[in-house]
Amino acid sequence: MSRLRVGAAQLNAVVGDLDGNAQRAFAAYQTARAQGCDLVVFPELMVTGYPPEDLLLKPAFVAAASATLAKFAARTGDCVAVIGFPERADHLYNSAAVCARGQILGVYRKQLLPNYSVFDEQRYFEASTETGPLFDVGGVKVAVSICEDIWEPGPVVAMAASGAEVVVNINASPYFAGRLPEREAMLTGRAAQVSVPIVYVNLVGGQDELVFDGASLAFDDRGRLAARAKQFDEDLLVVDLDIGSTVRGRIEPVLEPVAEVYEALVLGTRDYVRKNGFTDALISLSGGIDSSLVAAVAVDALGAEHVHGVMLPSRYSSEGSVADAIALTERLGVRTYTVPIEPAQAAFEKMLAPVFEGRPPDVAEENLQARIRGNAVMTISNKFNWMVLSCGNKSEMATGYATLYGDMAGGFAVIKDVPKTLVYALCRDLNTRAGRELIPQAVLDKAPSAELRPDQFDTDSLPEYDELDPIIEGYVEGDETVAELAARGFDEALARRVARMVDANEYKRRQAPPGVRVSRKAFGKDRRPPITNRWPG
Amino acid sequence: MSRLRVGAAQLNAVVGDLDGNAQRAFAAYQTARAQGCDLVVFPELMVTGYPPEDLLLKPAFVAAASATLAKFAARTGDCVAVIGFPERADHLYNSAAVCARGQILGVYRKQLLPNYSVFDEQRYFEASTETGPLFDVGGVKVAVSICEDIWEPGPVVAMAASGAEVVVNINASPYFAGRLPEREAMLTGRAAQVSVPIVYVNLVGGQDELVFDGASLAFDDRGRLAARAKQFDEDLLVVDLDIGSTVRGRIEPVLEPVAEVYEALVLGTRDYVRKNGFTDALISLSGGIDSSLVAAVAVDALGAEHVHGVMLPSRYSSEGSVADAIALTERLGVRTYTVPIEPAQAAFEKMLAPVFEGRPPDVAEENLQARIRGNAVMTISNKFNWMVLSCGNKSEMATGYATLYGDMAGGFAVIKDVPKTLVYALCRDLNTRAGRELIPQAVLDKAPSAELRPDQFDTDSLPEYDELDPIIEGYVEGDETVAELAARGFDEALARRVARMVDANEYKRRQAPPGVRVSRKAFGKDRRPPITNRWPG
Repeated sequence: MSRLRVGAAQLNAVVGDLDGNAQRAFAAYQTARAQGCDLVVFPELMVTGYPPEDLLLKPAFVAAASATLAKFAARTGDCVAVIGFPERADHLYNSAAVCARGQILGVYRKQLLPNYSVFDEQRYFEASTETGPLFDVGGVKVAVSICEDIWEPGPVVAMAASGAEVVVNINASPYFAGRLPEREAMLTGRAAQVSVPIVYVNLVGGQDELVFDGASLAFDDRGRLAARAKQFDEDLLVVDLDIGSTVRGRIEPVLEPVAEVYEALVLGTRDYVRKNGFTDALISLSGGIDSSLVAAVAVDALGAEHVHGVMLPSRYSSEGSVADAIALTERLGVRTYTVPIEPAQAAFEKMLAPVFEGRPPDVAEENLQARIRGNAVMTISNKFNWMVLSCGNKSEMATGYATLYGDMAGGFAVIKDVPKTLVYALCRDLNTRAGRELIPQAVLDKAPSAELRPDQFDTDSLPEYDELDPIIEGYVEGDETVAELAARGFDEALARRVARMVDANEYKRRQAPPGVRVSRKAFGKDRRPPITNRWPG
Repeated sequence: MSRLRVGAAQLNAVVGDLDGNAQRAFAAYQTARAQGCDLVVFPELMVTGYPPEDLLLKPAFVAAASATLAKFAARTGDCVAVIGFPERADHLYNSAAVCARGQILGVYRKQLLPNYSVFDEQRYFEASTETGPLFDVGGVKVAVSICEDIWEPGPVVAMAASGAEVVVNINASPYFAGRLPEREAMLTGRAAQVSVPIVYVNLVGGQDELVFDGASLAFDDRGRLAARAKQFDEDLLVVDLDIGSTVRGRIEPVLEPVAEVYEALVLGTRDYVRKNGFTDALISLSGGIDSSLVAAVAVDALGAEHVHGVMLPSRYSSEGSVADAIALTERLGVRTYTVPIEPAQAAFEKMLAPVFEGRPPDVAEENLQARIRGNAVMTISNKFNWMVLSCGNKSEMATGYATLYGDMAGGFAVIKDVPKTLVYALCRDLNTRAGRELIPQAVLDKAPSAELRPDQFDTDSLPEYDELDPIIEGYVEGDETVAELAARGFDEALARRVARMVDANEYKRRQAPPGVRVSRKAFGKDRRPPITNRWPG
């Protein structure tokens, strides 16, 4: 009976860092070889990082990626490596090189190119129509496939028909809540369908809006889960295949759903900050639940000593809010400045008084206040070179309940894809797991308020969040109409109002910083409505 | 000999305004019929406007577009109409309906779907592989094609081979400088290649970043230009075809290259402001050339009475700048407020002094000043509901020589795709055409300065613009490497510095407002590099 030991090298590549990625891959290759692996598989486009986006339009970039791959291949020995790279031939292909004994033994070209959701692969790549060769690894016939190829039956069925004894699938599959069970169910079905074991390796790490969650997998030829790597961390998953018999490996547990979202936020934030050359982050702390959650994420991502808070109380800030913010920073161990903004607010009001003569205060003055805070955090950021993390949640981003250049200002919007009801769940879960009130209970208990005028509450402008969030989910993630939402039992007038808010605030979202995608459809490259748009939803 | 009178109905559709677009089309249909047209052709996706982007993912939107088309078709008589719409069949197609006598007589489905540059058609549509039927219009065999179909030989060659006597090509082809001569040369070649006359109708109007320039065309079967509609305006171009003989129509002159860019800016600005429900615009006037140009564009787009200026002098503003700004507003007839920002600046400095203790003033204070101005214009905008037009040019957007939430703040960035050298050319051209100093000569003559600290000039931070702009063009529009730029004769160190500035400032551009695309590659949906990116260029 043929045996094969496969290492799934789940690595954190950095887009554009060709040499760094190749070195990271080679280090894992050596580790896997030392552990007796016959075959090591790396993620899709490991050489360039994923997604390289319009770097792929630069011929010099593609040429450099090929040169980097050749150098990597030259260092390989008997252990076979499968590694993703962009291949310039008659067209550009999303390819996997099979390397050993100092050579590139062959190449597989991706057949199914996703061009929906966050994916734009048809912008760059040509789809191959070929099943690709089988590679003999220690007497075992190995077929290679790339990501999307395995989500439709066609390519893998053809591979099995051609005699594949193992199908390797290399991925850069981004996270969203609920994605891992979908992947596992699909892979179970595919392996059982073709009666061939599957080794699935995924990228890990944050890249702009996307987090790749790792959780590489292996399934036996009956579709049973045989191995699972860690979520949200680099890992080398060693899988032992007895061809025609068992597949064995380590099975890491899966995080609980709420904790899983939290870990995605942590990794996405850490990688965005650090891969962009920052070490420290700055957060405007209001005493509210959103900035409290962002601070907790930042501390887990960067370490408390690299997180800085600033409190910017105005004449409308309650004593409770200031006290809550102070309590939070003490619990998290975050150093915090306090800069009352009254002087700037008074100065602006006086400056603008001749222009505004005779007009009552309205939302303009509320936004002014938020933008004074935005300016203060950005000025501190510029002075100390700390990246500003903004604190708007998905409910606010959807409805436009946020001030452009005010509370929306920042380098990274950590929770922009997290609805307010999930913000609460994340904080409660955090406290439960910590076994103490990391987020002060008072923050969880009080009614949400932007505190931009006296006695203001979110519910003055918005419905209750437990009513709002499911409507946003239906309208944004489900592309449901108002009529369809009404048919599902939502108040029609309310659904119409929410739909209008979502559409009318596209211009704000277009100027928002990126943030971690944790849902099936995030605001960002995932969702591309026109700004100028008269369709009423 | 068969004769055919064709009306090319070059209309300004609004994305999402299904009923409005159908009404606009039907009014043009009646005019064309009154002028004796046998056939009226409308732009690509006329029913929805172009590009509808992710509205196409909403089943209710596509269904409504079909219903609107059916109503339009029901109103047609003997005169045949060809009109673009999204067609839901087994897949979604980018289609043209051929309508007459109250019916949809047939449908053509687009074969070549652009998925590069600003186009994402493969995100939404399935490509057809069929040449499509010929339509008999008054005894003449008419083939229908859509936009990209005509840029490759395949589809039109097949249409000619099937017996087409006229090829109609319906378009939503966006403007960039130099595009019209390319289109005309390609269409001349295609008509001559197949010896069939071509009637090319284009959309007109602004949609977010894009301007559709109209300039619908007709060519005879030897490829000679026979008719051309107006640029940048609605038009009905009537073309008389004697099949096998002449094609005749009105030939509108083409604007000079610099004036053409100016008209694109005017139309793009007018449509963005008005289609988004605004009537008035607000501009922060510095006395510099960029804000002067934006003010001139705004006046031509919206009328002087709908344009409002605000001067926000600081302690570093020269008397000359204030005088230049006043002179400009008098010449343009724009009402202007003056709001000295010293009170806010002093207040912020005092507020932040404890945080910044012991640190010398640096770029943080310069950005602070720019953001105080950004806040002031946004607050005035919010109070009066005037859209802020920001004034950054492409040289600044490329190098990041701009303050996020400061001078970058606004609803629309009119000249973000105009390099500084072209800003000068546009102003000089404007004065020449006006026959007077619409833009004061002093504004043209003085050295560019952001005036954020004493005696500051752009050249303190940037190379001279006539050196900088060609490097930006090569690096951004041409995707050339630093080595390639050096080989073309640019200073290598300078090219490297510029490349680094371009890449390092992607995060700023990602938060910039949209603006009019006038080049082959604009910052926006046209160019999609990663933010997190270690590729050194």
